[in-house]
Amino acid sequence: MRLSARNKIPARVTSITEGEATANVTLDAGGTRLVASITIEAARELGLTESGEVVAVIKASDVILGVAD
Amino acid sequence: MRLSARNKIPARVTSITEGEATANVTLDAGGTRLVASITIEAARELGLTESGEVVAVIKASDVILGVAD
Amino acid sequence: MRLSARNKIPARVTSITEGEATANVTLDAGGTRLVASITIEAARELGLTESGEVVAVIKASDVILGVAD
Amino acid sequence: MRLSARNKIPARVTSITEGEATANVTLDAGGTRLVASITIEAARELGLTESGEVVAVIKASDVILGVAD
Amino acid sequence: MRLSARNKIPARVTSITEGEATANVTLDAGGTRLVASITIEAARELGLTESGEVVAVIKASDVILGVAD
Amino acid sequence: MRLSARNKIPARVTSITEGEATANVTLDAGGTRLVASITIEAARELGLTESGEVVAVIKASDVILGVAD
Repeated sequence: MRLSARNKIPARVTSITEGEATANVTLDAGGTRLVASITIEAARELGLTESGEVVAVIKASDVILGVAD
Repeated sequence: MRLSARNKIPARVTSITEGEATANVTLDAGGTRLVASITIEAARELGLTESGEVVAVIKASDVILGVAD
Repeated sequence: MRLSARNKIPARVTSITEGEATANVTLDAGGTRLVASITIEAARELGLTESGEVVAVIKASDVILGVAD
Repeated sequence: MRLSARNKIPARVTSITEGEATANVTLDAGGTRLVASITIEAARELGLTESGEVVAVIKASDVILGVAD
Repeated sequence: MRLSARNKIPARVTSITEGEATANVTLDAGGTRLVASITIEAARELGLTESGEVVAVIKASDVILGVAD
Repeated sequence: MRLSARNKIPARVTSITEGEATANVTLDAGGTRLVASITIEAARELGLTESGEVVAVIKASDVILGVAD
């Protein structure tokens, strides 16, 4: 399936912190640390494991830009 | 100001498409193409220009994970 | 690619309103009207046309619940 | 109160998974499964119960479109 | 309709910038300037006018926190 | 760092509810109650404490407008 989401960042899972409802999945994207908060259900259904390959998918309207002072 | 947002990706502006209300800002983050949709007001206030350095800031709850079939 | 996003609603495109930066795509999902605001770039890259079949993908953390008074 | 949000999907609660901070609420919308992640506080304040009627409210800018390959 | 969204900020419209697809609505909330980007369709359907009273509704998961250095 | 996000609301922390993965942070913004759901990691890294001063940062595209009937 092709997606309208403009941001697709290849990454590798480095750790998973699981709560009852939410999992925080930490990623390494070519040296940049990323974190995705997803449902526990999704984390299990995707079979996420440390060092597994994923793509971080982000809608353009969810990206804030910052500029150094 | 330190931010709760977990994702901060250094990037360089490659192009800006301006509408009346919204600007789509295309970025290069170490070879990965990113796009941020922000208000025209923000684009002007930040003084964004091609090849300018920015940081893409994204909340962890806005990151979807994909896994290849 | 399997996605962590929990909401995948099959729908048909009923109209597309294009601005310079953003396209509002109206959908019919089994009688429920939906609207997606995406970048113009995405609308063109996906080749969206009226009556074309799409899937509306929504992260669980983007869903607000309302209850009648 | 009338809302700017363009997507209002009538649904019925099918299950609630509660963590300490977040509740994942699974819905049935005319045969389509939906999931909303909301705060525990909101779930309790709304008095959500299984088979209760709700409306899933989603902003147009939070909808990603997918097209089959 | 009661909403799960935790943030409801009363405000007054101070200006509306309309594009083809998106309207940026500037608000005054007790002295704090706010901006909402909504679809043109929503802006018209709500009949927004300058100095009109509105409520800014924001999901808790869309709020980033910043702390001064 | 200057940010494209259009909404920056000064507030004071009134309570923090911590789960395993997510913290719900309740704020007082000049008499208006706000809630931010952030990762536990972010809550700890920012050193949030009751009565501490923060800024609630919200992207314009995440603001829904409501108008009384």
